[in-house]
Amino acid sequence: MTAQYDDSNIFAKILRGEIPSHRVYEDDHTIAFMDVMPQAPGHLLVVPKTPSRNLLDADPAILAKTIQVVQKMARAAKEAFEADGITIIQFNEPAAGQTVYHLHFHVIPRHEGQMLKPHSGTMEDGDVLKSNAEKVRAALAG
Amino acid sequence: MTAQYDDSNIFAKILRGEIPSHRVYEDDHTIAFMDVMPQAPGHLLVVPKTPSRNLLDADPAILAKTIQVVQKMARAAKEAFEADGITIIQFNEPAAGQTVYHLHFHVIPRHEGQMLKPHSGTMEDGDVLKSNAEKVRAALAG
Repeated sequence: MTAQYDDSNIFAKILRGEIPSHRVYEDDHTIAFMDVMPQAPGHLLVVPKTPSRNLLDADPAILAKTIQVVQKMARAAKEAFEADGITIIQFNEPAAGQTVYHLHFHVIPRHEGQMLKPHSGTMEDGDVLKSNAEKVRAALAG
Repeated sequence: MTAQYDDSNIFAKILRGEIPSHRVYEDDHTIAFMDVMPQAPGHLLVVPKTPSRNLLDADPAILAKTIQVVQKMARAAKEAFEADGITIIQFNEPAAGQTVYHLHFHVIPRHEGQMLKPHSGTMEDGDVLKSNAEKVRAALAG
């Protein structure tokens, strides 16, 4: 049995504007912002506005819109950070590594020879996140 | 610059039926089959029939259909393998870990306390793959 959605999670708070985020994209269905504990520089999160715990209980129509924003962010991040590649990860339930219980996709810029840092590792400096968010916005606008 | 699609890749061969696979699902746009080098038991791959190198150059409409099959397979794999969670991974370009250059999503059943084996590790026994494929088909039919 899957646990229910709990709207006190941190991404729900970000969606409601109760917690600040370095937002790089928003449309009617989706937001994207910088992960505050990046596994590599430029690590982004793509989050649908519609509540679901994860991919398992998501509305398929929302999932379709979300993956299209994942693609937009992947392309923008590749350009913004001159990345050699992009890793997309999406965790479902604690055994898989999920730590926030609102569906989200990780979009992680990769460079040759650089390993990923651990998930939920070190908090990044706010100025670095701000600067990286500006790079993504510029790539999206360009 | 992103390299072009090359239809000699192994998933293109599987799609053309030139190489066998333990297929668990097929619709007009998508197939799913067992990864022969599973990172955990029941590791599945979801592959759109339309050629693209990875997510970066994919048709957004195809991506939408593909992620909906990823969800179907994630739900079926969770049931089939009594998994505690599901990890979804999608690699773009070698720096990200991509080794086959046809868009694919990894759907990996997870159990508490079990780490993932390395990507592209050890070849699984054919009988194990066959048996796991039957479990997924049963979950999809159930």
